[in-house]
Amino acid sequence: MTSFPTVRSAEALEQGNTLAPRFDANGLIAAVATHAETGEVLMLAWMNAEALARTIETGEAHYFSRSRGELWHKGATSGQIQKVVEARIDCDQDAVWLQVLPQGDGGACHTGARSCFYRIVARDGRLVLDR
Amino acid sequence: MTSFPTVRSAEALEQGNTLAPRFDANGLIAAVATHAETGEVLMLAWMNAEALARTIETGEAHYFSRSRGELWHKGATSGQIQKVVEARIDCDQDAVWLQVLPQGDGGACHTGARSCFYRIVARDGRLVLDR
Repeated sequence: MTSFPTVRSAEALEQGNTLAPRFDANGLIAAVATHAETGEVLMLAWMNAEALARTIETGEAHYFSRSRGELWHKGATSGQIQKVVEARIDCDQDAVWLQVLPQGDGGACHTGARSCFYRIVARDGRLVLDR
Repeated sequence: MTSFPTVRSAEALEQGNTLAPRFDANGLIAAVATHAETGEVLMLAWMNAEALARTIETGEAHYFSRSRGELWHKGATSGQIQKVVEARIDCDQDAVWLQVLPQGDGGACHTGARSCFYRIVARDGRLVLDR
């Protein structure tokens, strides 16, 4: 069972050098992946402790699939492995930012799009396709 | 009460032009804000339906503060208003990406940092300050 320490003070949480992620009630933390070269946001997914630990250890993005209820080594079947160039955690340690280089066909989305965020929300609330 | 439609098919959800966000059991959706000019991830926060609607209507980022349990017009007190250059939604409509221009002192984090992601996770799992 992978585990991370818990820190008690806001000072340690926000300014310390101990990774002490604050998983939610479901044991998950949000993770955003951006393309390390273009800065494009590719996807937003979730990690449990094991996914975060494996991501750090292997340098390849691992998530937790909420739909399948299991560890998800991104690209293991699709080839869209995400090589992690840099991982960061936010102030209150409840979100992770990965800068990645997508392998395979360079995509990240199950729809075939390069990024999951292929639709713009217009000012009238309609969605505009941009892929 | 602000509300958005629900779409039933995966096709409509993923390829349609109807904004039909899938809020979680708490009525929230994840929102990531990046700097529209530098691409830096500034913060990851949450929106309820009202926050999303106000963001679209006003062109300024609104979130839902989980700690305070209320609508949060980012920058209303700090001056760090986030002008939305572009808003996008992801394939399965459970995450929002805002490209923003931070006003005021240009920061986004309550700690005073420009971005909430001011610590790098090193390969040994320790955090390295980079702000």
